Amino acid sequence: MVRLKFSIELTYGVLDATCDFLFNIHPALTSSQQVLSESLSINQPVQQQLFMQNDDGTRWLKLRANSGELVVRYEGLVEIYHTVADPWSLEEMAVADLPMDLFNYIYPSRYCESDRFQALANHEFGQMPPGYNRVLAIRDWVYQRTRYTSGSSGSSTSAVDTLTDHVGVCRDFAHLMIATCRALNMPARFVSGIEFGANPAFRPADFHAYVEVFLSGRWYLFDPSGVSPVMGLLRLGTGRDAADVSFATVFGATNPALPVITIEAIEDSQQGLDLPVHQDNALSTAGSPQSEFQRIW
Amino acid sequence: MVRLKFSIELTYGVLDATCDFLFNIHPALTSSQQVLSESLSINQPVQQQLFMQNDDGTRWLKLRANSGELVVRYEGLVEIYHTVADPWSLEEMAVADLPMDLFNYIYPSRYCESDRFQALANHEFGQMPPGYNRVLAIRDWVYQRTRYTSGSSGSSTSAVDTLTDHVGVCRDFAHLMIATCRALNMPARFVSGIEFGANPAFRPADFHAYVEVFLSGRWYLFDPSGVSPVMGLLRLGTGRDAADVSFATVFGATNPALPVITIEAIEDSQQGLDLPVHQDNALSTAGSPQSEFQRIW
Amino acid sequence: MVRLKFSIELTYGVLDATCDFLFNIHPALTSSQQVLSESLSINQPVQQQLFMQNDDGTRWLKLRANSGELVVRYEGLVEIYHTVADPWSLEEMAVADLPMDLFNYIYPSRYCESDRFQALANHEFGQMPPGYNRVLAIRDWVYQRTRYTSGSSGSSTSAVDTLTDHVGVCRDFAHLMIATCRALNMPARFVSGIEFGANPAFRPADFHAYVEVFLSGRWYLFDPSGVSPVMGLLRLGTGRDAADVSFATVFGATNPALPVITIEAIEDSQQGLDLPVHQDNALSTAGSPQSEFQRIW
Amino acid sequence: MVRLKFSIELTYGVLDATCDFLFNIHPALTSSQQVLSESLSINQPVQQQLFMQNDDGTRWLKLRANSGELVVRYEGLVEIYHTVADPWSLEEMAVADLPMDLFNYIYPSRYCESDRFQALANHEFGQMPPGYNRVLAIRDWVYQRTRYTSGSSGSSTSAVDTLTDHVGVCRDFAHLMIATCRALNMPARFVSGIEFGANPAFRPADFHAYVEVFLSGRWYLFDPSGVSPVMGLLRLGTGRDAADVSFATVFGATNPALPVITIEAIEDSQQGLDLPVHQDNALSTAGSPQSEFQRIW
Repeated sequence: MVRLKFSIELTYGVLDATCDFLFNIHPALTSSQQVLSESLSINQPVQQQLFMQNDDGTRWLKLRANSGELVVRYEGLVEIYHTVADPWSLEEMAVADLPMDLFNYIYPSRYCESDRFQALANHEFGQMPPGYNRVLAIRDWVYQRTRYTSGSSGSSTSAVDTLTDHVGVCRDFAHLMIATCRALNMPARFVSGIEFGANPAFRPADFHAYVEVFLSGRWYLFDPSGVSPVMGLLRLGTGRDAADVSFATVFGATNPALPVITIEAIEDSQQGLDLPVHQDNALSTAGSPQSEFQRIW
Repeated sequence: MVRLKFSIELTYGVLDATCDFLFNIHPALTSSQQVLSESLSINQPVQQQLFMQNDDGTRWLKLRANSGELVVRYEGLVEIYHTVADPWSLEEMAVADLPMDLFNYIYPSRYCESDRFQALANHEFGQMPPGYNRVLAIRDWVYQRTRYTSGSSGSSTSAVDTLTDHVGVCRDFAHLMIATCRALNMPARFVSGIEFGANPAFRPADFHAYVEVFLSGRWYLFDPSGVSPVMGLLRLGTGRDAADVSFATVFGATNPALPVITIEAIEDSQQGLDLPVHQDNALSTAGSPQSEFQRIW
Repeated sequence: MVRLKFSIELTYGVLDATCDFLFNIHPALTSSQQVLSESLSINQPVQQQLFMQNDDGTRWLKLRANSGELVVRYEGLVEIYHTVADPWSLEEMAVADLPMDLFNYIYPSRYCESDRFQALANHEFGQMPPGYNRVLAIRDWVYQRTRYTSGSSGSSTSAVDTLTDHVGVCRDFAHLMIATCRALNMPARFVSGIEFGANPAFRPADFHAYVEVFLSGRWYLFDPSGVSPVMGLLRLGTGRDAADVSFATVFGATNPALPVITIEAIEDSQQGLDLPVHQDNALSTAGSPQSEFQRIW
Repeated sequence: MVRLKFSIELTYGVLDATCDFLFNIHPALTSSQQVLSESLSINQPVQQQLFMQNDDGTRWLKLRANSGELVVRYEGLVEIYHTVADPWSLEEMAVADLPMDLFNYIYPSRYCESDRFQALANHEFGQMPPGYNRVLAIRDWVYQRTRYTSGSSGSSTSAVDTLTDHVGVCRDFAHLMIATCRALNMPARFVSGIEFGANPAFRPADFHAYVEVFLSGRWYLFDPSGVSPVMGLLRLGTGRDAADVSFATVFGATNPALPVITIEAIEDSQQGLDLPVHQDNALSTAGSPQSEFQRIW
């Protein structure tokens, strides 16, 4: 069990008379991730609404800000429970056995053009036995061929670009891994979050992007960028790719400042609270969702 | 009210020992589209399941076929009720007023890279007054700049390609219109269906792709390819783009034959049954979905 | 006649033990552009060679620098003679009449994928009468649809990207215009140079990119970015597109500083020296090259 | 020494009143490739011209055909002399030692976006010792990762596409190899020709595309598609990529038929005439060109 205390502060200069924002900075509420306390402060008197997606607990703050400076600050204390599995026990699922809801995570999406990865995925991974180890092989292949370089990609960079250019940031690593998994008919999706890095003393906390692959009936976590132990992931949003879970979608002209993020892990062996560390077991914080489909016959 | 009698026959040579299929050939079940009768026949004794998506009534037939020939034949009789609106009464909705469920139709998707259409959409349509007429202008712009050419595009062709190449088939017309609408913050989505053409004597019935744009609280129908009156659309599936609603997704090696489709419209003025024709009013067969979000505050 | 005094200073931190450079910072030597005086200074004792392309007078400085700081400074005084033509007299040439050497400027190139612009070019300009005015229409279309934004494009941005994204810097404007012209079978090429802007008081001098289109037997100058009167162009290099005429090609790891460029125009009515200004006539500084082909029969 | 007898017959239905063509179906005339006899017949009385590029002997037939059927038939008898080198003796050349004329073959081109292959090329081949073996490794990497599939690519398919899609025809194999070599600063170019396959009984003769890489002062031949021994290559054209050396460029609307090509190798040990076979030595039929540059200092 991991307990994380964190804050996110976002600052914008709003250039229009009013500007609508959609923020995903509240932690998702799931059976594996509970919020012990939280607070939100906004420097302007704005119209605001908070929504939650029923299926995966993603929360969205919608607000209309006025011209001038907007500062949105969230603070929270969150507890995360991990389902731990022996890697050898995890299996890729046959298409025939997949819940209908998961096909959306096999189909291609904006930044994960899996339709173009069929030949590549089969060339590189088609001969490997299916299972968790094949997913690890994909993760490691992405990690080894891609150079992490800040500013090397932009909002239109997709998995095909990253495959070609061998460079990117965490979201690009995630997209390349997702596209490759989907081309092998593995449901794979994008998780945005805050990372508790292995050594925060040396790196400021930041937004991060992870991958989940559906194996043996649950979503297992992978970080192809190698930045952070997946145990330290705090989930903000879940989607097909980055198009679905931007931490901020802005409908107007603004001058954004860099986000300011803090995070700390609370260690307390008596309470069973661990520091996030790399480990060999497979970790999951999401099971199969409640189905949006009904079977007719 | 329109009543359509139609059939779809799909034939595949299955090359592997078994092959999984996901078909979307059953008409969607919605409050605007009712199935009076239907039948399905399959030439092999297969394992099969039929599912329905709760939110939009899309139906999926999942089956595992064996090596050899597979013939799937669906026949149905369907009634479609149109909500008719005066074009002048329809308005684009402010972002602040959009139901949360609709943001997925503003975000970019695999074949509709609306993130790259911002400058173009503003250049071409930014000065026009918002409303139905602006949507018509986008539809006509797509229609006039794109040459309908069978075989000119493939499964990886996206709106950026169609924008550049000025050529495509119905799905490409739809993707280009959707990407442009989304860049202006209009929710826009993809509808796959069967068309009852203006003059079926001269063209065989075929699968078709349409666009829905969300205006004044409902989804309104547009056909940027100009092939068919939207009144003759029989809805099979609804999604972000073609990635979501392929009529057949095949997980294995097959030799597919060309689909064989028949369709006829039943005219009966006493029963109020009309032939599908082009008309100046705006038509809708879908309202706002039941929300998957709950408002917290 | 225009007389320009200018200097270019380039500074690099060379990170490897040695590093090869290819510079195109000497003005081209042509019958329309003569160098009255020039000097080159380099802060390191380097191996260096200066070459000139026979066909178009482009000059290349090749040198191997050592680790540490490299400063290359060129100063020159250049006179440019313009061939002036009445726009109405200029004609597009029939393919059958084109010199063989010019087909390279009709074929697509790295940043000008004219093979993909056929439908677009015919859609937008196919109905216009051929001639100088059609070229102006293309220039204006590029100018009006593209927003000049520093830093909006990179070394892999091509005409297809600029067509989609409606944003770029001078080289992107040039590539889009070239691709469109070639799609209509007009030979079109890329000129890199230094601009003497309309009002240098308000903008520092900079490298610039122009377009030449072959009409009635000569290459005529166009600036689709609208930044500068073509009369103020000082030609450094000529090529199919930016791939051929980078002002600096670096074969190794360096930290480059921003180039420092100065330029002034010498006005002297007695000597017939004019300030570069926008004018309505068509201007050319390049005729048909000496042929690299021999006719056999 | 190889002696090849071959014919090319091209047939077009010309749909416009007149149509200009540029054909590259005459063998190049070089010191390594001599034409013993040849004949050309055209079924229409057309205006025609034959040109030769001075630097590499590529020949171009330019003609204007009239409406109706056009049949162009070339027959020739050609002798090819190979410069044979021990692979171990061949070295990649330092940038500083490269003749200026060769930089055009390092820069990116339409179908070989080598600017985007830097990271990939260094990742895959950066650790290998430079030399002929590294070029072979690139050739084999292209061959093993790409599936030869007729009709899988088109006139706008480039090396980035082939890298992603792992499928193509001979020109795509060539483009991918060229882009990768250039990213490592090896001059590499495209050769179009006719292949004398290893076993023509089983495959009809066809146009083919090869790669030349500049090593130790000469251009050496490679066939990344693995279709044909390079010894059997008959050179038609030489260029940066396929944009430069199409066997037919058509300026108008036509219905083309499939080309009909025959080729046979004449074996005669007394005259020293060999059948083309695969061999372990490196083969070259092109040296450094006469320079288009003069050194100033």
